[in-house]
Amino acid sequence: MPPPRNAIYCQAGGVTAVINATAAAVIETCRAHPDRIGKVFAGRNGILGVLSEDLIDTSHEAAETLRALRHTPGGAFGSARFRLGSFEEDRPTWDRLRAVFAAHDIGYVFYNGGNGSADTTRSLAQFPARFGYPLTCVHVPKTIDNDLAVTDCSPGFGSAAKYLAVSLREAAADVASMAASSTKVFILEAMGRHAGWMVAAMGLAADADHHPPHLLLFAEVPFDPEDFAARVRAVVERCGYCVVGVSEGLSDRDGRPVSALPDAHPRGEEQFGGVAPRLARLLHDQLGYKCHWATADYLQRAARHLASATDLAHAEAVGRAAVQFALEGHNGTMPVIVRESDTPYRWHVGMADLDAVATLERRLPREFIAADRCHITPACRAYLLPLVAGESWPPFRDGLPVHAHLTNHRVPRRLPPWVAP
Amino acid sequence: MPPPRNAIYCQAGGVTAVINATAAAVIETCRAHPDRIGKVFAGRNGILGVLSEDLIDTSHEAAETLRALRHTPGGAFGSARFRLGSFEEDRPTWDRLRAVFAAHDIGYVFYNGGNGSADTTRSLAQFPARFGYPLTCVHVPKTIDNDLAVTDCSPGFGSAAKYLAVSLREAAADVASMAASSTKVFILEAMGRHAGWMVAAMGLAADADHHPPHLLLFAEVPFDPEDFAARVRAVVERCGYCVVGVSEGLSDRDGRPVSALPDAHPRGEEQFGGVAPRLARLLHDQLGYKCHWATADYLQRAARHLASATDLAHAEAVGRAAVQFALEGHNGTMPVIVRESDTPYRWHVGMADLDAVATLERRLPREFIAADRCHITPACRAYLLPLVAGESWPPFRDGLPVHAHLTNHRVPRRLPPWVAP
Repeated sequence: MPPPRNAIYCQAGGVTAVINATAAAVIETCRAHPDRIGKVFAGRNGILGVLSEDLIDTSHEAAETLRALRHTPGGAFGSARFRLGSFEEDRPTWDRLRAVFAAHDIGYVFYNGGNGSADTTRSLAQFPARFGYPLTCVHVPKTIDNDLAVTDCSPGFGSAAKYLAVSLREAAADVASMAASSTKVFILEAMGRHAGWMVAAMGLAADADHHPPHLLLFAEVPFDPEDFAARVRAVVERCGYCVVGVSEGLSDRDGRPVSALPDAHPRGEEQFGGVAPRLARLLHDQLGYKCHWATADYLQRAARHLASATDLAHAEAVGRAAVQFALEGHNGTMPVIVRESDTPYRWHVGMADLDAVATLERRLPREFIAADRCHITPACRAYLLPLVAGESWPPFRDGLPVHAHLTNHRVPRRLPPWVAP
Repeated sequence: MPPPRNAIYCQAGGVTAVINATAAAVIETCRAHPDRIGKVFAGRNGILGVLSEDLIDTSHEAAETLRALRHTPGGAFGSARFRLGSFEEDRPTWDRLRAVFAAHDIGYVFYNGGNGSADTTRSLAQFPARFGYPLTCVHVPKTIDNDLAVTDCSPGFGSAAKYLAVSLREAAADVASMAASSTKVFILEAMGRHAGWMVAAMGLAADADHHPPHLLLFAEVPFDPEDFAARVRAVVERCGYCVVGVSEGLSDRDGRPVSALPDAHPRGEEQFGGVAPRLARLLHDQLGYKCHWATADYLQRAARHLASATDLAHAEAVGRAAVQFALEGHNGTMPVIVRESDTPYRWHVGMADLDAVATLERRLPREFIAADRCHITPACRAYLLPLVAGESWPPFRDGLPVHAHLTNHRVPRRLPPWVAP
């Protein structure tokens, strides 16, 4: 039996309400195999910490701290937006990674991210072939955008979906009671640039026809201001008020993001957000309605207090499976959620090759958008419902949720400082 | 013993996560005194329904529906923004109200609202003196703004405060994990036009020095853009990121609302909201930071799933007490929360005369704002903590909270239609 080798765990891209549950599952499963895996290091701020040799020694964290990670939102070790170029175009970075891996006897990499991260993990999985360096890399899925291919859903999405559906149902009760003499329209904006999964999730708030949301504006459906105003007016005349769910990625017929039009955009061109106030102004100007709007932004992906129990179970399961895959030598793979049935909801964890994942984006299927293009279909509802099912309240103290506070001990450095090329 | 007379219950102004708990308590307590109180009618959309003789007969609602009102946000009978003028200036309206009261043998009015509503209730309490019409009017307090005088706090505020503190703590964990390579600043905007209670509540999210929120922008403190940018930069340089809580009512030295400056305001001049995106743009332009922001709007006053158990207890207690006050003949009064001690938190319901309530606005005391003018003091924390304490999760079905659905039967009309003067 060869001696155990160390592992690196990285968080990548936008975090979720349950990514730390995955982290806990990875670390705990590694700890259960001391004959094969030595220490689990975490990159501080993900792969940025690997490059700068700023590694966290997770062996200093008590078992109860790891358990508390399950109810702690954000990324406990820091995340990063980073893309590893090809071997040919980014050779100094590859060499540095190899040096860090070798200096700390890294035999396993668990890379916890979304679509871009899957691509980076696929690159890391080439280390044995490129360098003859023995390494097993497994991508661990997470993204609120739900746009990872092959897997039935992405851990993180179910909780964000639940947050949006619950928030919309609650806010709709509010505006319904105010509409006679005040606010007629309420608009809730969801994250998700290209794929409309998060907007679809808001559709779950309606438990009967004509219940809010009355209109969903999917990123997939080109925005037509006149059609929108006409539909809102029709709903207000029928129901007395109108509740709208909209994607931050809403674009017009020419593909221009509605939020990026000059006078509505408070931030840099590269960012989305701010569609809701623009729509509110449009309705106020065209129809004279008093409008309210909410942009939940990070609240929707950080709301661990409202996590879906299903999502949490998925997040833990992919963490455990990733370690199992690595121990079995499945380099360049990713655990995926495989759905067996909707009702009762049954699922298991399967294995995908990263070549089948990393180049694809999973879009909202056409059959999930209703013929009127502003509601979800029964098939979409059947898909979504299990993903938001179940509650997993965190512990509260003094009225607020308790979060884990890690010590995040740094591993002693063994290399010269990294100077990015 | 005189025969029982009927009661009218009205919801007024912006609703809260727990106003329906007050409604349930009022109706249940009335039902417990059939010798004194006949039916409880609710004005559909509050006093607008009284004027138009659109009354709801709550006796059709089952006891279990009333219990479910306790976990239903919004205003179950509809609310209204309305102000009753003086007897001299608004005589036709007074006459109409008297006609409706007489036609339906109304002997009790329970008016559930905030500051403006307290003033209207005080007017209604003049009915016996003005018309010789026997009527007992009690104002039942609610407002997320916490600006009602005499009472230690306003039902509705504790739950909104809890929502903001929890949301800020969760979102801060998110931005902390992204700051190394992405978002440096997160801004959460709170409702509350003039009084900074809601912004103060966000201060509870910090459980140690230097924990977020790093800066609070109170409506009470004039906004200085340069000072703000300098403070944010200092925090980012010290902590790596900066979390800001801001009031929608933030104003500059000249008293101009920051949100109402022309290019930032998507709605009519009379509305607030939209401060957060304006601050984000300011920081992006001046410091080059990537900023995210959230405007929770109605979510913060509708989030029954995250209600404070203390707040819920207050909301029920004032509902019960209001009926007791009426039965004891205390016309023109309001139940108030009287604090006995912070730790352990002890309180009881007292009685206030509406003359002492209706003309005052309860501002955030100076001693609750720290010397640096962007944090709360220990005294503020001691005041706020009991108000957000305790959880009261609603029942969930299919992953979403279950809300009561009332039948809202209309009482047969006995008068000609009302034509507003």
